[in-house]
Amino acid sequence: MSSSFEANLAKLANLSVQTGVGLLPGQELIISGDIAFAPFVRLLQESAYKLGAKNVFVQYSDEQGTLIRYRNGNPEAIGYSAGWFHEAVAGMLEGGGAYLSITGGNPGLLKEVDPSLVAASSKAHAQAAKKLSNVIMEAKANWCGVPYATPAWAKLVFPEVSESEAIAKLWDAIFATTRVTEEDPIAAWDAHCSELERRSAYLNERQFHSLRFTGPGTDLTVGLADGHLWCSARLRADNGAVCIPNMPTEEVFTMPHRNRVNGVVRSTKPLSMRGTVLDGIEVEFENGKVVKAKAAKGEEQLLRLIDTDAGARFLGEVALVPNSSAVSQTNLMYFNTLFDENAASHIALGQAYAETLEGCSELTDEEKRGQGMNESLIHVDWMIGSGETDVDGVAADGTTEPLMRAGEWV
Amino acid sequence: MSSSFEANLAKLANLSVQTGVGLLPGQELIISGDIAFAPFVRLLQESAYKLGAKNVFVQYSDEQGTLIRYRNGNPEAIGYSAGWFHEAVAGMLEGGGAYLSITGGNPGLLKEVDPSLVAASSKAHAQAAKKLSNVIMEAKANWCGVPYATPAWAKLVFPEVSESEAIAKLWDAIFATTRVTEEDPIAAWDAHCSELERRSAYLNERQFHSLRFTGPGTDLTVGLADGHLWCSARLRADNGAVCIPNMPTEEVFTMPHRNRVNGVVRSTKPLSMRGTVLDGIEVEFENGKVVKAKAAKGEEQLLRLIDTDAGARFLGEVALVPNSSAVSQTNLMYFNTLFDENAASHIALGQAYAETLEGCSELTDEEKRGQGMNESLIHVDWMIGSGETDVDGVAADGTTEPLMRAGEWV
Repeated sequence: MSSSFEANLAKLANLSVQTGVGLLPGQELIISGDIAFAPFVRLLQESAYKLGAKNVFVQYSDEQGTLIRYRNGNPEAIGYSAGWFHEAVAGMLEGGGAYLSITGGNPGLLKEVDPSLVAASSKAHAQAAKKLSNVIMEAKANWCGVPYATPAWAKLVFPEVSESEAIAKLWDAIFATTRVTEEDPIAAWDAHCSELERRSAYLNERQFHSLRFTGPGTDLTVGLADGHLWCSARLRADNGAVCIPNMPTEEVFTMPHRNRVNGVVRSTKPLSMRGTVLDGIEVEFENGKVVKAKAAKGEEQLLRLIDTDAGARFLGEVALVPNSSAVSQTNLMYFNTLFDENAASHIALGQAYAETLEGCSELTDEEKRGQGMNESLIHVDWMIGSGETDVDGVAADGTTEPLMRAGEWV
Repeated sequence: MSSSFEANLAKLANLSVQTGVGLLPGQELIISGDIAFAPFVRLLQESAYKLGAKNVFVQYSDEQGTLIRYRNGNPEAIGYSAGWFHEAVAGMLEGGGAYLSITGGNPGLLKEVDPSLVAASSKAHAQAAKKLSNVIMEAKANWCGVPYATPAWAKLVFPEVSESEAIAKLWDAIFATTRVTEEDPIAAWDAHCSELERRSAYLNERQFHSLRFTGPGTDLTVGLADGHLWCSARLRADNGAVCIPNMPTEEVFTMPHRNRVNGVVRSTKPLSMRGTVLDGIEVEFENGKVVKAKAAKGEEQLLRLIDTDAGARFLGEVALVPNSSAVSQTNLMYFNTLFDENAASHIALGQAYAETLEGCSELTDEEKRGQGMNESLIHVDWMIGSGETDVDGVAADGTTEPLMRAGEWV
């Protein structure tokens, strides 16, 4: 790789720790990622220690090890997840730690694995990691997810070129969308976050009762939770640190009302989930619940997903992203939600984010449910916006305001 | 690598899990090792799942990450170890888990690092991992340590040949000493363990009051703990599993009396410890305590080691190994204690093993100390036997019995 690549990777590492995680001096940082990401992990470690980290604990995973488990594990093994470890990580984070997750594995890793095993294993993991997931979803710790280009991922995005060229092209896209190639990436992120915050402030002021999405195969009304808050890139965690949980990020997002979603919706991009790629999803909602679901590709995985638990058929997030976003401008299909969800408006089935409900931490579980907050072991985003999508804000009195036309902010 | 190498590596993996760890069906196994060991870790994972493991949790480390921490961490970071993680692992093991540790990193990794930082970090780790270390030293879980040949290690053992040849030669030595090249490695280990058990049974019957080591630069009397037990390769853990904690292993070992060690002793092999290599160690003991210590190489590391805590200047183990052991027969200096301690009789400074004291689990701390058991955060073996070493057993009445002459069993 070229020296400019090395320089950009080091810049991405520093940006991820300083601006993404927003690491505080003296914090302990946990980094999770595949052993294939080691060159990047080492740069992250260096950045974190230079920024005063007390410790960097790296939890390396291994895709090959995951496959070995599916191929050789007995049913007891497939239905088990190391809760003792997830609990320990959750405790460390609640005690003041920070979390950095690196994404970039093979989106099709598990395509040959029996979907029933993947569903059983994913559910066991979600149950065992419930507390850890809550720490993240409730912003008790500062966290960030950043990408790393691997050969399998790059070849899926750029199938027509050689592996090395595909990797180089994917890195170019990563560096562009994470603003690493800007003259001052940290200043560029500050400006970008401010712009998103201006947008979410406007939507918070409007307090729409619902959003209506229309486009090919889509006529969907997404009611918003009572007391919903629009959020965007930057988040202040309970520990006082300010982080950017996703890099890249282009969305403003809020909490749907779990029982006030009605209509039909068609996905506009493939969805990479649990080691396989779903496409052509079509779903019908009735009073918040998915009552019909099909997919041109990965239908079995989709049906198993929405049967995970009682909340898996209801929405936990709705997000608006213009078709001209920095990620969308790359004109690529990434097969990676961290990217694809930032190229299109999207909705997520499952757990809602506490930060998107005003005063959530002071509410009882019953009050949260009453205001429309959904709970589930899953949280799966999928893309429903495109250059042909219109979005209207609908006020409590039924009057409408055009928010997006042909995928762009009005 | 050749197909016979691949076959031998797979045999070593299966042997390590089945005979080394003695994995019980349904057990959760934790494997610790460097990311460079991944090809072997994957074979271990496969073996473990095939033997019915409930889970294989891999804790990958990274030597480069270790160096990054020493180079960039502030004093708070150097003096910190992730106790929350060690506690969680200890809890998992006490709850019925098993442990497999892979050794084989660069013996000289930390030679350029300030020894005071290494000592501070090692002590912090030992303190934070005290409970985990107790689980191991007190045999509450089944465990095993096995080797993996890395380039840096191989080139230290075989400096005169190319890197690839050095790696191949080191693997040959590993496969020979772990009996992987025997027609039936599991049966070969059974026979080997039985032979060592015959030897330790004889020594237990004799109940010597002390051992006397004589050789060039050495005239050392090692008093034995009251109620000492000679142990060898096989160990029955509290959870009922039978394991072989070290592969290879050639030793019979027992507990010295912490206050009854007197005389002088000179090391017979270099000692690889904490990322550096010590050599030419000369020590004088008085009533159990190291009162003089020097080393031709690594003296500062040695002096810092014995100042770790009050028990670090006293012995916790004495072991007898004939000069004709399978490891010794390879005629190599391994710079890795797992090997070198099995080529020569040795002693260890620091913590004693509970299994080497009769009924230890029923004794109070005061009773253990009274019988001569030593406690410390450290346990560091070093080699004092050679082809010129004689060992006598000394009975309570002062009569002596020759045990070894010129390094061989009488």
